[in-house]
Amino acid sequence: MKGTVGELGEFGLIRELTARLTSTSSVSVGPGDDAAVVAAPDGRVVASTDVLLEGRHFRRDWSTAYDVGRKAAAQNLADIAAMGAHPTALLLGLVVPAELPATWATELMDGLRDECHVAGAAVVGGDLVRGETITVSITALGDLRDRAPVTRDGARPGDVVAVTGWLGWSAAGHAVLSRGFRSPRAFVEAHRRPEPPYHAGPAAAELGATAMVDVSDGLIADLGHVAEASGVHVDIHSGSVDIPSQMSDIGTAVGVDPLQWVLSGGEDHALVATFPAEIKLPARWKVIGEVRAAAGTPRVTVDEAPWTKAAGWDHFGAVPEVR
Amino acid sequence: MKGTVGELGEFGLIRELTARLTSTSSVSVGPGDDAAVVAAPDGRVVASTDVLLEGRHFRRDWSTAYDVGRKAAAQNLADIAAMGAHPTALLLGLVVPAELPATWATELMDGLRDECHVAGAAVVGGDLVRGETITVSITALGDLRDRAPVTRDGARPGDVVAVTGWLGWSAAGHAVLSRGFRSPRAFVEAHRRPEPPYHAGPAAAELGATAMVDVSDGLIADLGHVAEASGVHVDIHSGSVDIPSQMSDIGTAVGVDPLQWVLSGGEDHALVATFPAEIKLPARWKVIGEVRAAAGTPRVTVDEAPWTKAAGWDHFGAVPEVR
Repeated sequence: MKGTVGELGEFGLIRELTARLTSTSSVSVGPGDDAAVVAAPDGRVVASTDVLLEGRHFRRDWSTAYDVGRKAAAQNLADIAAMGAHPTALLLGLVVPAELPATWATELMDGLRDECHVAGAAVVGGDLVRGETITVSITALGDLRDRAPVTRDGARPGDVVAVTGWLGWSAAGHAVLSRGFRSPRAFVEAHRRPEPPYHAGPAAAELGATAMVDVSDGLIADLGHVAEASGVHVDIHSGSVDIPSQMSDIGTAVGVDPLQWVLSGGEDHALVATFPAEIKLPARWKVIGEVRAAAGTPRVTVDEAPWTKAAGWDHFGAVPEVR
Repeated sequence: MKGTVGELGEFGLIRELTARLTSTSSVSVGPGDDAAVVAAPDGRVVASTDVLLEGRHFRRDWSTAYDVGRKAAAQNLADIAAMGAHPTALLLGLVVPAELPATWATELMDGLRDECHVAGAAVVGGDLVRGETITVSITALGDLRDRAPVTRDGARPGDVVAVTGWLGWSAAGHAVLSRGFRSPRAFVEAHRRPEPPYHAGPAAAELGATAMVDVSDGLIADLGHVAEASGVHVDIHSGSVDIPSQMSDIGTAVGVDPLQWVLSGGEDHALVATFPAEIKLPARWKVIGEVRAAAGTPRVTVDEAPWTKAAGWDHFGAVPEVR
């Protein structure tokens, strides 16, 4: 396919985009009508929205359109998993400049489709608009399969804090890329395309997680949301947090304490959950801290002390908030 | 509340926005967690996404933030109604410049909330991002209450074509505004804030509608989608289409045939549906045409003839498509 999205026109591009999609048994009406119809066998639907902007959340010189699609889908599908639900569907609101090559949009859609496939979901609809800044707005839907949602407000003193998935890899990859390097590949790839542990979300609900979030803004920032909603204090044991030797090497090379990436780097979409201490967690969950009775601010400490570096990412560039 | 969204910060503004919301009995988890949880008693969920950009879909000098909110919600909730479903929930992806007054965002949210209330739905979640262009991305959800969805592909030769709601009012209002006038108020108001006939959607499904869409791009364009999906031809009887005398007056004043607004003006979100001819339609439905066996292109004619003026709005500014 050649040409720009402007040359192809709105309806032409929509045809190209929808032609690439695959479906699942959950989809009874897919793209092309006023709305999609998706199974919600549980009688409830889980829904989450995220917006990614070029220049702010991705760069075309750092990531392919395909990777942007994978990442955009992943961060939304991870939100569904973080409620303990199984992702079922994804909708796309896409803003593209008329002069953008149409292949950028179709490759983005390939990425969305493939990441949905990993999570068991399908792209079921969307909207396409011309604008100056590439904007990828995603809504993901999911099904709880008769379990209660795992919200942020259920952590109780005495619970352990455990994580599964990757922490700090995307931030380390970002540090590499922003200094003009393209390796180590594993971290650059992690920045371009996160791999959220989707299946661990419903599994955590099954295990008895009392609270859960995905790490999108940074571990301390996101645990801060849990602590605030639950009215508790969380202490992270830095010695329990895995720092791969290769990440330490990058830290040394660029002059950054890699613990900073692990504790405040977002976008890997690890899952962090609290569990009653007596629950035996599978090996893929790593206990990294504990929940205590509320004890003023900050609500999250590292080895009993306030974390004085950035806790996470504030999209307005104001002072980062630790709550 | 004073200051810009940048001064308030991401979390500060999110707090202001969510504080304004009301809920319904359908919402079991509202804003503030990874995802919302909304009732889907039917076992299926209807979902639709639309994106509105400043400068393209609204202008801050023509519409208040409140009206933009009403309109953004209305166009999505109308998509749900056009499937024959009852709207239940709405999610917001909002891109705002840091220098925007925070009250613009909160008034937008008031508009979203109030339009949701009209339709029986609630705002349940969203995402907030800083960017250059105000972008309002909406996903609406709905429930079919055990009825089959009314899709675009069910129109059959012999069916009548009927509309309910307003046609051409928004386009006439746009014509008035774009010439620097602020009246007649009724048309300007219709452009700023459409009033889709939400309840008529499920009612049409109950009556036995064979196909239905909301008129978002223009009557001919949207009926073109029905005709294409159903593999039929549609003829509109222009003499059956209501043109209010005040609309004729505006047409005379600005030198436009008002039939143009009625047949190709979008954004009023009227509902147009096809029904078996033997069904007795309530007074609020107006029969304006008929469905025939497919007869080549164009698929939609007006009084047996091709409509040579614009059929509707193509967001990429390419040649309008009549299919």
